Amino acid sequence: RAVTVPPLPPLLVRGRIDRLRERLATLPVDALLVHRLVDVRWLTGFAGSAGLVLVTADDAALVTDPRYGDRATVELAAAGAEVTVEVGGPGARERYLRERLAGRRLGVDASAVTWAQARELVDGTAVAVEPLDPLVPTLREVKDDAEVARIAACAAVADEALASVRPILADEPTEAEVARLLDRTMEDLGADGPGYGTIVASGPNAALPHAAPGDRRIAPGDTVIIDVGAEVDGYRSDMTRSFVIGEPDLDQERWLDVVHDAQTVAIDHVRPGSTGREVHEAAAAVLAGHDLRDAFVHGVGHGVGLVIHETPFLAESDEPLRPGQVVTVEPGVYLPGRGGVRWEDLLVVTDDGAHVLTAAPKDPIVR
Amino acid sequence: RAVTVPPLPPLLVRGRIDRLRERLATLPVDALLVHRLVDVRWLTGFAGSAGLVLVTADDAALVTDPRYGDRATVELAAAGAEVTVEVGGPGARERYLRERLAGRRLGVDASAVTWAQARELVDGTAVAVEPLDPLVPTLREVKDDAEVARIAACAAVADEALASVRPILADEPTEAEVARLLDRTMEDLGADGPGYGTIVASGPNAALPHAAPGDRRIAPGDTVIIDVGAEVDGYRSDMTRSFVIGEPDLDQERWLDVVHDAQTVAIDHVRPGSTGREVHEAAAAVLAGHDLRDAFVHGVGHGVGLVIHETPFLAESDEPLRPGQVVTVEPGVYLPGRGGVRWEDLLVVTDDGAHVLTAAPKDPIVR
Repeated sequence: RAVTVPPLPPLLVRGRIDRLRERLATLPVDALLVHRLVDVRWLTGFAGSAGLVLVTADDAALVTDPRYGDRATVELAAAGAEVTVEVGGPGARERYLRERLAGRRLGVDASAVTWAQARELVDGTAVAVEPLDPLVPTLREVKDDAEVARIAACAAVADEALASVRPILADEPTEAEVARLLDRTMEDLGADGPGYGTIVASGPNAALPHAAPGDRRIAPGDTVIIDVGAEVDGYRSDMTRSFVIGEPDLDQERWLDVVHDAQTVAIDHVRPGSTGREVHEAAAAVLAGHDLRDAFVHGVGHGVGLVIHETPFLAESDEPLRPGQVVTVEPGVYLPGRGGVRWEDLLVVTDDGAHVLTAAPKDPIVR
Repeated sequence: RAVTVPPLPPLLVRGRIDRLRERLATLPVDALLVHRLVDVRWLTGFAGSAGLVLVTADDAALVTDPRYGDRATVELAAAGAEVTVEVGGPGARERYLRERLAGRRLGVDASAVTWAQARELVDGTAVAVEPLDPLVPTLREVKDDAEVARIAACAAVADEALASVRPILADEPTEAEVARLLDRTMEDLGADGPGYGTIVASGPNAALPHAAPGDRRIAPGDTVIIDVGAEVDGYRSDMTRSFVIGEPDLDQERWLDVVHDAQTVAIDHVRPGSTGREVHEAAAAVLAGHDLRDAFVHGVGHGVGLVIHETPFLAESDEPLRPGQVVTVEPGVYLPGRGGVRWEDLLVVTDDGAHVLTAAPKDPIVR
């Protein structure tokens, strides 16, 4: 691999099952069945597309099908997982659960199974099944050094890809052409691919926070929002830079400056003990002071890891931030019909503040 | 767009809601709430990432949030949808449902909602909520001409991409290099992207039906399985070709020939009135006749449309095939440690048989 992606320390999962057990001990269940594949990967190192983890007070097993048995054994050993592998064909999973769980209470993350799966579990295993709030996603919020190293590598790849692609913005490319070139450049730099659907939104499209890149040609006078990140070993980065093609008008200049101020103030609030809501309100207050509060139509940021949008969702979170959380800070303003500006950096919360992983310059004027 | 993708007829959704109502009339519910995004898209033309459709005997509404209101109105009009757009912020959906459904029975596809969503719906709307089997996915199985045109365009792009990339197989590329080049070539030919994760599996990896392309270099003596399709307007194609690098040995020759025979016989069984299971058993019987039945470890094929693997799953289906269904026929053999062969074509069921959409040659020997 890799021009930009450096050698990375191994991803080790040791201790994670024990941390999960500590949480389980506070809940009225005897066991937890983990369905969400990123949760399975985080707990065990298994990256296949079919597997469940059953965790009890005494043991933990990855239940997968024959296609994946060998791969699971290799991946779990590499990750240092203290988890056995149980391989079975159709029906084996239900039999295994029935045998292991007779008379016990099984917890399931209700947001990680379909209603049909929940009904099957209740009918097929005849154990008491309890719907739970997400447990493993909460544990996944705090990243260890090997995880942060991957997210930082993603951020570095995206920085470099954007630097390499930026000059073509002056040549009236389509949004889709810019997005495609960013994606290919990130791959060429050693990423596994883009971390999510790259956004390139220009002119009136820049007023739509979720625009998909299209055939519109980027033209002089446009604001352009580029939201781009990479993926490495399942981990992702997330960044947004804004541009104006040619001389900005007074409104565009104001949007760029005010959102930048809002972001700076919000980033200052990212430290252990602050809540996500405080970070959001800090950005919102700056925008309100410039009569742009109503143009800020989304939350100020979110967690990033194996999933591109994960907890904590800052605007809705009254939990204090903790060291090791990786979050975006991304205020923006969206002016229907006219354009928009968003500045987004990726931060890891440290013991006494936060470290910004994004290094791309904020240098919006394209001449 | 498009070297290979021709101008395509518009995707129109007219009549689909009425077909859904005919099904609903046979069930003990007064309304259906559609959550699955591809179902929403198929019913209304709306391709955004947040929207529900509520269908009653008299009307149909797309309920979405303010981000998507304008886009939804435009897309529904373009698709000729007989569906109103209801835009609301947080809580509006629940209020709308409460008001519209008081005292009525609401059906929900239990495989399209999470358990948490189902519980919220029951608690938040205080209507009687009935879990149903998938309804819209069953209707989606039969494609109209505009849908088939897109799937055929995808198949043509994949054919051409494979023809263009094939020569490099002799140059000892890595699997990942071949996969990436296929993906980029499909994009350059006008596809929106790959239809799924392209598979390039060589040597021992070819014995794993779900191998991900890796850093292994393709070498003389390998069997190589390439499973590749494109995406256009949300529709996908699916095809597999097998290769041997250099002179095949006697076993490799036998695998290539026997799987080809199995596929030919299976394709002959694809016609209205045959069941999927009959198609599967036809392929299995040929393989059994050559002592390769145990090496065929998956179903013979599946439906393809807005979703790459959709019903009917042929090996498990006792429903007669119907004109307009688009299915793969893809027998394969997998010999642990040694390699594998799979031939996969994409077919549309016609009034009196099937039309093969895949045109890539079956020309496995790479010299």
